[in-house]
Amino acid sequence: MVLKVTKSALPPIEKSENPEMVERKGKGHPDSVSDECAEAISRALSKYYLENFGQVFHHNVDKFSIIGGIAKPRFGGGDIVELQKFLAIGRATNQVMVKGSIHYIPIGTIVVDTVRDVIKKTFRNLDPDTQCNIDHVLRPGSLDLVGVFDAGVSATPLANDTSFGVGFAPFSDAEKITLEAELLLNSDKFKDKCPASGEDIKVMTHRLGDEVNVTVCNAMVSKYCPDKAAYVNARDMVKNAVQDLAAKIIPKKKVIVNVNTGDILDKEVYFLTITGTSAENGDDGVVGRGNRASGLITPTNGRPQTLEAAAGKNPINHVGKIYSIMSNEIARKIVAEAKGDAIEVYVRLLSQIGHPINDPWLGDIEVKVAPNADFNKLEKLSKEVAQSVLDDWMGVRKMFLEGKARVW
Amino acid sequence: MVLKVTKSALPPIEKSENPEMVERKGKGHPDSVSDECAEAISRALSKYYLENFGQVFHHNVDKFSIIGGIAKPRFGGGDIVELQKFLAIGRATNQVMVKGSIHYIPIGTIVVDTVRDVIKKTFRNLDPDTQCNIDHVLRPGSLDLVGVFDAGVSATPLANDTSFGVGFAPFSDAEKITLEAELLLNSDKFKDKCPASGEDIKVMTHRLGDEVNVTVCNAMVSKYCPDKAAYVNARDMVKNAVQDLAAKIIPKKKVIVNVNTGDILDKEVYFLTITGTSAENGDDGVVGRGNRASGLITPTNGRPQTLEAAAGKNPINHVGKIYSIMSNEIARKIVAEAKGDAIEVYVRLLSQIGHPINDPWLGDIEVKVAPNADFNKLEKLSKEVAQSVLDDWMGVRKMFLEGKARVW
Amino acid sequence: MVLKVTKSALPPIEKSENPEMVERKGKGHPDSVSDECAEAISRALSKYYLENFGQVFHHNVDKFSIIGGIAKPRFGGGDIVELQKFLAIGRATNQVMVKGSIHYIPIGTIVVDTVRDVIKKTFRNLDPDTQCNIDHVLRPGSLDLVGVFDAGVSATPLANDTSFGVGFAPFSDAEKITLEAELLLNSDKFKDKCPASGEDIKVMTHRLGDEVNVTVCNAMVSKYCPDKAAYVNARDMVKNAVQDLAAKIIPKKKVIVNVNTGDILDKEVYFLTITGTSAENGDDGVVGRGNRASGLITPTNGRPQTLEAAAGKNPINHVGKIYSIMSNEIARKIVAEAKGDAIEVYVRLLSQIGHPINDPWLGDIEVKVAPNADFNKLEKLSKEVAQSVLDDWMGVRKMFLEGKARVW
Amino acid sequence: MVLKVTKSALPPIEKSENPEMVERKGKGHPDSVSDECAEAISRALSKYYLENFGQVFHHNVDKFSIIGGIAKPRFGGGDIVELQKFLAIGRATNQVMVKGSIHYIPIGTIVVDTVRDVIKKTFRNLDPDTQCNIDHVLRPGSLDLVGVFDAGVSATPLANDTSFGVGFAPFSDAEKITLEAELLLNSDKFKDKCPASGEDIKVMTHRLGDEVNVTVCNAMVSKYCPDKAAYVNARDMVKNAVQDLAAKIIPKKKVIVNVNTGDILDKEVYFLTITGTSAENGDDGVVGRGNRASGLITPTNGRPQTLEAAAGKNPINHVGKIYSIMSNEIARKIVAEAKGDAIEVYVRLLSQIGHPINDPWLGDIEVKVAPNADFNKLEKLSKEVAQSVLDDWMGVRKMFLEGKARVW
Repeated sequence: MVLKVTKSALPPIEKSENPEMVERKGKGHPDSVSDECAEAISRALSKYYLENFGQVFHHNVDKFSIIGGIAKPRFGGGDIVELQKFLAIGRATNQVMVKGSIHYIPIGTIVVDTVRDVIKKTFRNLDPDTQCNIDHVLRPGSLDLVGVFDAGVSATPLANDTSFGVGFAPFSDAEKITLEAELLLNSDKFKDKCPASGEDIKVMTHRLGDEVNVTVCNAMVSKYCPDKAAYVNARDMVKNAVQDLAAKIIPKKKVIVNVNTGDILDKEVYFLTITGTSAENGDDGVVGRGNRASGLITPTNGRPQTLEAAAGKNPINHVGKIYSIMSNEIARKIVAEAKGDAIEVYVRLLSQIGHPINDPWLGDIEVKVAPNADFNKLEKLSKEVAQSVLDDWMGVRKMFLEGKARVW
Repeated sequence: MVLKVTKSALPPIEKSENPEMVERKGKGHPDSVSDECAEAISRALSKYYLENFGQVFHHNVDKFSIIGGIAKPRFGGGDIVELQKFLAIGRATNQVMVKGSIHYIPIGTIVVDTVRDVIKKTFRNLDPDTQCNIDHVLRPGSLDLVGVFDAGVSATPLANDTSFGVGFAPFSDAEKITLEAELLLNSDKFKDKCPASGEDIKVMTHRLGDEVNVTVCNAMVSKYCPDKAAYVNARDMVKNAVQDLAAKIIPKKKVIVNVNTGDILDKEVYFLTITGTSAENGDDGVVGRGNRASGLITPTNGRPQTLEAAAGKNPINHVGKIYSIMSNEIARKIVAEAKGDAIEVYVRLLSQIGHPINDPWLGDIEVKVAPNADFNKLEKLSKEVAQSVLDDWMGVRKMFLEGKARVW
Repeated sequence: MVLKVTKSALPPIEKSENPEMVERKGKGHPDSVSDECAEAISRALSKYYLENFGQVFHHNVDKFSIIGGIAKPRFGGGDIVELQKFLAIGRATNQVMVKGSIHYIPIGTIVVDTVRDVIKKTFRNLDPDTQCNIDHVLRPGSLDLVGVFDAGVSATPLANDTSFGVGFAPFSDAEKITLEAELLLNSDKFKDKCPASGEDIKVMTHRLGDEVNVTVCNAMVSKYCPDKAAYVNARDMVKNAVQDLAAKIIPKKKVIVNVNTGDILDKEVYFLTITGTSAENGDDGVVGRGNRASGLITPTNGRPQTLEAAAGKNPINHVGKIYSIMSNEIARKIVAEAKGDAIEVYVRLLSQIGHPINDPWLGDIEVKVAPNADFNKLEKLSKEVAQSVLDDWMGVRKMFLEGKARVW
Repeated sequence: MVLKVTKSALPPIEKSENPEMVERKGKGHPDSVSDECAEAISRALSKYYLENFGQVFHHNVDKFSIIGGIAKPRFGGGDIVELQKFLAIGRATNQVMVKGSIHYIPIGTIVVDTVRDVIKKTFRNLDPDTQCNIDHVLRPGSLDLVGVFDAGVSATPLANDTSFGVGFAPFSDAEKITLEAELLLNSDKFKDKCPASGEDIKVMTHRLGDEVNVTVCNAMVSKYCPDKAAYVNARDMVKNAVQDLAAKIIPKKKVIVNVNTGDILDKEVYFLTITGTSAENGDDGVVGRGNRASGLITPTNGRPQTLEAAAGKNPINHVGKIYSIMSNEIARKIVAEAKGDAIEVYVRLLSQIGHPINDPWLGDIEVKVAPNADFNKLEKLSKEVAQSVLDDWMGVRKMFLEGKARVW
């Protein structure tokens, strides 16, 4: 491995002249739901494989798609005309030969149980049994990839591909409010207070200097909106909640919050849904098109992003997945351990197919160094942290298997 | 619109200490094929709408998916066990009311004709009629979005959403060889010489200092590989072609080329296919998971990337799509017109839902200024170029309708 | 209408030299479940159309199919590997224009609610939400048929097609035991006593002279069969129940009962299922392939049969459906009102497309006349009964809408 | 086996007072096409299994369905809005273990190749590649049935189930004209002369005394009908062709022919199609819902019918299929060999699961004996003929494998 640690030439993000742009798709957004379903299926498959065969077999559900339905919401109610469809696309080992006899993996049951569970945990007003259709087209894997995969059972797994993983830390104010606003609006506490707020939420933020613009797109639930006034009231509650949160967590910024800016009230255009998600009416979702493993989408100047989808891939040797989590972990740890010397840390890892996953082809750690900090010490620290996280592939795997790694 | 033009604090990319990482998924890669199918369907729908009704109606095919099949290739041939499936997911206006009577759009026919055409143009060894299944689940759009959309028929269209578009220019050496290697390997000229080389190609490049590593993943076509020797020979032809190209277009770099590094010859692990694409055996594809509108995936430090998928969206008011193309266009034009004063240009555009598309919420143009160049002049030039490209939304639309805009 | 009443030249069925052959597919047989789902969807659609628009619109779900799953049952349990799929195939009006605005019919919701309900009412051990997938491909109707259909809204409906309906009465002993055995085995009383007996039951009977052979095929439920002994015991309970029933309802016949004759105990071949239906493992079902509207399949010499499927068709003007019920009704009524003078009655009706449904093209009533009975009186009675049933199309429609007409 | 030969008490069908009712669904009717596809797939699978493994493995495609599309025909042309879908439903062995290694059957390729071939051979104006979607959900078979099946590889196969087969000979005049009219109208000769006549044809006949009513339903092809006059002209050509045929083959009957009686010309209601089949617009088809193995549907008094579908089932031990062909064969042979002594012959066979297929549980041969004929001789002849056909199961299998057995 070549591991480069460099000083960044850029100023700290809060001091940059460049505007910041941040987005988070909430837990009920079709892309996030797709990510969550894919990852949950990967977990369930891994668990089944482990319990029955002592090892995780090849699988990759990273094209899980939600095909939007057709709905006709109206204040107070509405009709589901066509159900939304949850379709697991990908590959999974479906039979295993043990001592000459074939064992069948109950893929169909694993998919339906898992997806129903995700829907129930994600949505308050979407019934998996009467408002959703759950299906899969998971097929056995390519022989080539299985070859690489199987080799990695006992020792350090070998990278299944040449892939990137990128991460950074810490979050800027704009990033903080984007993430936290969604978490708050999708918390039980807020939903209990404002049941009209559906789980399909998108927070889009941009900052220029000290002014932070937060635009929230929140699908409202029709049965809790008997009329236009109730809808507008719910919109206000969302706005106020985010405004209050901003005052608390990023007090120094001037924050402007807007909600459902696409509405045209006098033309009866609202973001109204029956179930709290736009997928009920034609908005589709798919793995890897939403939040990065950081939890955010950050096209801001200087923030790294990869196209690699983490969700749904196998947690054993899929480096695109593993490095996505590790990169962010490395960045966070360096910032933490550097105790102020590293203002910001950016990590990029590139794997080499067929090589142990703790030995990437290339590691690139870029640090915005604090004034007066000792770069040599930082360099050393960074390398140590990076290697220790890379070597702890077993710990990362455990996080995946226990559902503790953020993948969206 | 706030349009910021800033000087970049970073050195030119070729002089940066940071490693570069670049990837291009070739025209036969399942993700690229998905992009191409989605965009071609958007074009075909737009054309149909225009010819029959004088305007483009709402559509969004940006979740087009390829569900991999099952194949058992062997040297000289093999069996397609299950066909790969091309599934158009999304929304499209399927009926139009004209003077009280309903006109039906032949969505099914448009999809199948378009996808067959894309397959034939993309692949030499994949037959759309006997080796593919083509289907769609395109549903009518959400009333909300249709509302915004319809408003944009006559005057400057209004942005359908709050979305990002990012772009940059010019390409670095690593980026050049990545793009050009794929274009060369997928050219008729090379395919005529090396018919075993399938169209599913991935080029992954990283550069550290002057050393450029190019890894090519090329699905080989079994009927042109009667045996292992033929396979290895084809691999060598690919390698040599890229090596020669590098010597020609980036002569100053030290270039190392590797092909199909996942092969393990003595374990009979090859990247062998019947049809030239890994989608024949379980590799799925989906829109928006491959190349950005630049033609590349660039997680490199400093290179901007958006998650927005350009392919398949409507070309009238989908700002995510339109700004993706415009950003790159603006960057290229500034570089060209600045005649050496702008070493690199980065463009970020953020739309405001409901506002005219030539008036973004935020524009961010970052320039790496040449020594001795006049930044004020550059700033003025940049603003003028940006506005003129934004105002030329009709020209960009025309590029989409004529298939001249690069979306992957 | 030409209505012929003729004397049959054949002896009463019980005295015929010819063997009798009778079959009944029980309520859990995939073909019967398909029929039931199709008919229930027709009822639900009719109800929705009536309640919302005051009339029944065109629909035809008479190709409803069950696509068998993959299951691996074992004594005491087993795995559902792939779910069985309930697929509604056919046509249904999905939008209605009222005063210039379009109303959408929630077809998707109607289908899923109805099919879940049928599954719950039919099976004790099949969960619609975790062991079944429910979907539909119902499309708008052909303009031609809609034309004929709409014309029949106010007055006597016009026949939608040229179709047959046939019926007969009364049942022979072999027919009685075939029907009643299934009803008994699928009764709550028997299931409470023998929970291992699944609802997928086929009774196949043949009679030669006084000897009646009854073969019962009954899918056993694995969780109630911890071992081979329990399975064999359940088989015996089925056998004994049918034997006892025969002694009670057809005491004069010598009845031999066999259960699951395909079993080969020493080769571990059983009719074992997890859910009580063979559809869990690849046995498919479809409308119109099971019992006729009489409740039976009767290839016996002299018993009439039509290929017309009654289930799922619209109850307003689909003569194939309406005449199937009317023919049996006419036969039963003539037998009842003739008080012994008509030993057996066979009815055949042939419609004429575009003519009122109470005016068939051809009616053929064949009577096995009792010795000394007055044929002229019988002829008159038969014609009167036939016409009164034909004229009571409103009563028959009501039976369909209330789910009181037997269609399988 | 109990084999009964009995004298029929009924008069010859031509002399019966009862009306006759006969129907034939032509080769382009969705039900017939489904039958043909299913049978062709069974043939193709059998051929593949035999060539690669020396034996026919379990399969059953007898629920093949055609899901109608959506089309908007108009004189001279029209639009295919949604494609019709050809969906193979059923079971087929998809992997075979040979000496410890698994061989995969290319089910997907076999299905698509076969169905394309059937479409091309059946229709002149339906393109399988741009107007049809071909797919399958064939799954591996139930262990139980595989058990019975495998046992029958070497010796006389054992019946896979308890099933009926019925047949009769010869055809009546009404039956002859029904069958021959369809064969004529779907002949190349007629199509060359009247290209507007599509292949989706239904002939429905009833006879009362000497009067024979023939109703032909023929989907017309829009591109050959530039206007109403051309349509009416094509209708007349169909009518005249059938009228001329009747004069030739059943000269003694008074024949009335009607074509497309559902048309209402002044309301613009026609049976017009783009492709020659009603499946283009919502008319679905499925195996086993059309013609019996006799080639006809015959609800006429006295004509036997079974619900058993012959098409798509395995030709080795599926007795429902095999006995359907054998019954008709036995009836025809007895009539032929009895040289006038047997006016009509009816055959019913009932299998016994697990017993050799040449040893049915019950055989019932009913003969309408010519005046002065010797019944004892007929009885003997009938038994001999029956047994010889039953014993020639290898010949019947060959007919299936070579596509020479009529199954619809």
